[in-house]
Amino acid sequence: MEALKERDALLNRLKRLEGQVRGLQSMVREDRYCIDILTQIAAIQAALKQVGFKITEKHISHCVSDAIQRNEGQESIEELMAVLKQFSK
Amino acid sequence: MEALKERDALLNRLKRLEGQVRGLQSMVREDRYCIDILTQIAAIQAALKQVGFKITEKHISHCVSDAIQRNEGQESIEELMAVLKQFSK
Amino acid sequence: MEALKERDALLNRLKRLEGQVRGLQSMVREDRYCIDILTQIAAIQAALKQVGFKITEKHISHCVSDAIQRNEGQESIEELMAVLKQFSK
Amino acid sequence: MEALKERDALLNRLKRLEGQVRGLQSMVREDRYCIDILTQIAAIQAALKQVGFKITEKHISHCVSDAIQRNEGQESIEELMAVLKQFSK
Repeated sequence: MEALKERDALLNRLKRLEGQVRGLQSMVREDRYCIDILTQIAAIQAALKQVGFKITEKHISHCVSDAIQRNEGQESIEELMAVLKQFSK
Repeated sequence: MEALKERDALLNRLKRLEGQVRGLQSMVREDRYCIDILTQIAAIQAALKQVGFKITEKHISHCVSDAIQRNEGQESIEELMAVLKQFSK
Repeated sequence: MEALKERDALLNRLKRLEGQVRGLQSMVREDRYCIDILTQIAAIQAALKQVGFKITEKHISHCVSDAIQRNEGQESIEELMAVLKQFSK
Repeated sequence: MEALKERDALLNRLKRLEGQVRGLQSMVREDRYCIDILTQIAAIQAALKQVGFKITEKHISHCVSDAIQRNEGQESIEELMAVLKQFSK
């Protein structure tokens, strides 16, 4: 139940994010001031980052934790680190 | 002419980005593996960053440059720095 | 033994980092070209990030894993997420 | 005169940064808690970023602005964008 609520909340965020990207297209089409467009891009990036953190936390709490409790944590931790590095590129 | 081509290229990138965000929603809906979802988010962030750089460059080449040539650069540069700082948050 | 080697490797990296920061001071003192100074700052940030990843991985492999195996993972994971968020600021 | 004051302020920041990196070494040597070490790294990165912004702003206000006023802005702007991209890696 909890997991379903969480997923719905995540999907709502992503719906809003899709709307923000469409808004960005209108701004470009209407030749809006670059600084306003850049501010909108920064807002989308911040929203995306929040989604990324939520999923990272869920992943550590479930998949990584399960692997650690089965004494198979190492591979799972390496996989996690690889994706964290991609994020900070 | 050049400017119109540039804008079309930008709009195409943003269309693709919208598709990527929709793809993200399907991945969440289908309960795909967190690491795959995070990899997709990292890809979207990278694409968004590229768009941000393109617009920043255009902005400096046009608006900021014009302001500098009118000897009114300072306000324009401060505005640019403020938006660059938002990006690195 | 392994842990001591790892710590020495980390300390060597940090010694080098200290040298890079001192190099930065010389560059500023000698009024070197801004772009060269900025390139040096980017190099230091990249080195610092690598150190951060190393320590994050070690932390998850040890402290967080131990907490999870004692069924006390949640607090530890929240603490980890809080520091990851600071990093991406 | 103004420029000298600015440079001194910058050198003071970099001295403090060098101290912070040395503090990091002590923390590692004394086996301090990873989360505290990571928090210190995040603080150094934030300080370094501030220095980077200061120098970027100075660079745009002087070198890039001069180039633009001589109608030689393009190369200077491309060079600036290349270094901004390195930063966001």
